[in-house]
Amino acid sequence: MALDPRVRKKLIRVLGSDYVKDDPITCYSYRCDGLTLHPAEPQAVLYPADRDQLVAAVRILSEQGISFLPRGAGTGLSGGAVPREGSVLIEMVRFRAIGPIDPVNRTIEVEPGVVNLHVSHAAQPHGLYFVPDPSSQKACSVGGNVGENSGGPHTLKYGVTVNHVVGLEVVLPDGEVVELGGPAWTTPGPDLLSLFIGSEGTLGIVTKIICRLTPLPERVHTMLAVFGSVREACESVSAIIRAGIVPAALEMIDRIVIQAIEQTIGAGFPTDAEAVLIVELEDLREGLDAEAEQIETILRANGAVDVRQAADEAERALIWRARKEAFGALGSISPSFYTQDGVIPRSALPRVLERILAIGAAHGLTIANVFHAGDGNLHPLILYNSRDPAEIEATHQAGREILETCLAEGGSLSGEHGIGLEKSHLMDGAFDEVSLNHMKQVRAVFNPRELLNPGKIFPQPGRCGELKGRPGDAAAQLRAKSGIRV
Amino acid sequence: MALDPRVRKKLIRVLGSDYVKDDPITCYSYRCDGLTLHPAEPQAVLYPADRDQLVAAVRILSEQGISFLPRGAGTGLSGGAVPREGSVLIEMVRFRAIGPIDPVNRTIEVEPGVVNLHVSHAAQPHGLYFVPDPSSQKACSVGGNVGENSGGPHTLKYGVTVNHVVGLEVVLPDGEVVELGGPAWTTPGPDLLSLFIGSEGTLGIVTKIICRLTPLPERVHTMLAVFGSVREACESVSAIIRAGIVPAALEMIDRIVIQAIEQTIGAGFPTDAEAVLIVELEDLREGLDAEAEQIETILRANGAVDVRQAADEAERALIWRARKEAFGALGSISPSFYTQDGVIPRSALPRVLERILAIGAAHGLTIANVFHAGDGNLHPLILYNSRDPAEIEATHQAGREILETCLAEGGSLSGEHGIGLEKSHLMDGAFDEVSLNHMKQVRAVFNPRELLNPGKIFPQPGRCGELKGRPGDAAAQLRAKSGIRV
Repeated sequence: MALDPRVRKKLIRVLGSDYVKDDPITCYSYRCDGLTLHPAEPQAVLYPADRDQLVAAVRILSEQGISFLPRGAGTGLSGGAVPREGSVLIEMVRFRAIGPIDPVNRTIEVEPGVVNLHVSHAAQPHGLYFVPDPSSQKACSVGGNVGENSGGPHTLKYGVTVNHVVGLEVVLPDGEVVELGGPAWTTPGPDLLSLFIGSEGTLGIVTKIICRLTPLPERVHTMLAVFGSVREACESVSAIIRAGIVPAALEMIDRIVIQAIEQTIGAGFPTDAEAVLIVELEDLREGLDAEAEQIETILRANGAVDVRQAADEAERALIWRARKEAFGALGSISPSFYTQDGVIPRSALPRVLERILAIGAAHGLTIANVFHAGDGNLHPLILYNSRDPAEIEATHQAGREILETCLAEGGSLSGEHGIGLEKSHLMDGAFDEVSLNHMKQVRAVFNPRELLNPGKIFPQPGRCGELKGRPGDAAAQLRAKSGIRV
Repeated sequence: MALDPRVRKKLIRVLGSDYVKDDPITCYSYRCDGLTLHPAEPQAVLYPADRDQLVAAVRILSEQGISFLPRGAGTGLSGGAVPREGSVLIEMVRFRAIGPIDPVNRTIEVEPGVVNLHVSHAAQPHGLYFVPDPSSQKACSVGGNVGENSGGPHTLKYGVTVNHVVGLEVVLPDGEVVELGGPAWTTPGPDLLSLFIGSEGTLGIVTKIICRLTPLPERVHTMLAVFGSVREACESVSAIIRAGIVPAALEMIDRIVIQAIEQTIGAGFPTDAEAVLIVELEDLREGLDAEAEQIETILRANGAVDVRQAADEAERALIWRARKEAFGALGSISPSFYTQDGVIPRSALPRVLERILAIGAAHGLTIANVFHAGDGNLHPLILYNSRDPAEIEATHQAGREILETCLAEGGSLSGEHGIGLEKSHLMDGAFDEVSLNHMKQVRAVFNPRELLNPGKIFPQPGRCGELKGRPGDAAAQLRAKSGIRV
């Protein structure tokens, strides 16, 4: 599928011929984002240079009734940047301006293509940083963080992206431009700013972001607690919270992930442990040691066989490198894995972790766990072989059972990865019909013809017949059976 | 205006005869909330006992096309609970259940009529509290806090109500019930929870609130800095923030308010000072003293003539009592005052404060200031005599000029008091037409006939002819002239 020649001509007039691509190789290379299970090709890829070019391109597509969607770095895990229905993909990679920084009001203006970590680098000379720190922070874009309302290990203390963005400039699906919020950090009237953050590219395309910056902690203390059972590690999480402590981060890694980390990164984690907890404290200079001691006492009382305190910045950096590259490390032990993102009240951690292992066992699948324990934000990683159709089917089924378990515990379908196209078929189980209808109507206020990023978030009625994929594509057949629609 | 007898009969069947009132004295007593400048009487007041009664009453009113609105404690300052167009007022005072508390997940479920401070009292045995702390916290209701997205002195460190509420149960204007958010603290899909918080009772009536609780600080350090000029106090605010410090609170009080406080409460504030700053730090045990010293150095370098450290909890409590009762204390020096609520980037504080004093001088009015300096959230208090029509007119004009100054500085119309009916005529200057239209359409998704709380937030086109008020009512005539519509 390629662009209609008249449309291509109009787009080239606006963007230049280098920035309108609909050749098969380009389209093929954009067929998935971080979610590889549901590929779909765009009919073309556009690379606007600035807001005015974007507006002009959006107006052309909108007039022609051609659907489109933005794409940041493509690291999303729920398929938010996968073009359904042959939509035109708008690459935001050329929106790279950073600054200016305002150190008194603690804000920085950035364009959406800026890499997350580069915001903190720019703010560092002022003793400030941008808090949201997903594992992909070396690659993911701030625009994508806004779309998915991204979190990270430090969500526990500091909240998610919506807590760290005070203003947006947005291009609506009809090409109109609006500013939401602003440097004064408040938004009277219905809060369209919070509505946009986390709307997964279904309400508008962000072209400018005013980020809120936070002072760098004066001192950080990182410790690693080693456990002989996952249950003890989970119970330690509740015990730390119940003691009134607010760690900056509280992360759990299980044995399978520890072994993968040790095979690739070599962080010195004990390979005979069933689980480790990373606990990070940060704050004023002198108070830390007492709190670290208190936490060590709690950890040992809950069964920790060893508690190591990071002696220096190098040791701390290694622990975090291991945590953030853990997903990649799993490549060393499994050809493919499927990352889940469910949330539960943290008090339910021990029993839900046991249930996840049981779900894996029932399907003959190994499930690894590395996640934001303090927030109750699970990331079960289902290991599977992508060449084995039976394993793919079992993987989908196990994923669905895990998320249904989260819902049954009063939890939710996603903590930070979004619904995208991955979990849209589960939204019926997560929300009542009245809520879903109101959500759809709110989307329709901004995106009435659903030209922008169609087929995301909400269940798609009766679309089984439209399954894409090559004839004989085992994955597509299995998706059909498992009820997941491409 | 009283209820149609058929409607009264239906409502009494649902609520009981004691809980449907439309006698003149009841209606008169509900003609205003904390904003006294724009009174309007309801046609009746209802007192439902629980959600089911509320739903039944809302269905009756909705079927009859009678407008209605909820009222919490009536402490709001922008007229959000003032019944325009003879709406029926729904008193939420009987929704008083507190609990249960979940200390591990740090949540508490409360009904909307619960007084703000009572939430923290209930949580205290678990070492937890509910952060939002408006000056009215001894009286205001949590439902009102949700409606207005209330702040308080500790907004600087902890954010406003939207950061401390994780779930709501809401009755929509047609009587349908929806749950938004929940104990897992996340809301995938379009974020209706954040949309509701701060919607000023225009989207639905809240019947249950899951509050997020926060650990009580281990130690608090409060200091009072004395200045010979407002400018020096303002510049100290920027200097503290620029140093990378995040105080828990950073409040400014000017000479006029200091004198009123000393005449009534007697907090020992120096009556010859032009301004004082309250700076509060809280955190780990040992680190505080060093940070307090650093702040004292900054304050003195910026012109503080004295810096007092609260020696004990009693001294701290007295400082905060003075701050929180400052509005009341002004009654000792002026028959009436009008509280403004504008926000500016904090770096603009020095010049905006000077501009506010100039606006007061130009209109022959005294303007006092007591406000959240760290957030740039101003509360200019315009002192006036409510029996002097010329002063009322000048007060409206000065208020408008102050808010226009905030907008010109990149600020906003409200930090925590809302738009209500007070500032709806200024929204055109604060938002572009595209944004306003989308806000109205979002409201229409939930409140399509505008039966719920009509005439709030958005400018009312061509309604001057409908001015209410007794013939010869000077205030009403002046409102007409000043462009503010009742």
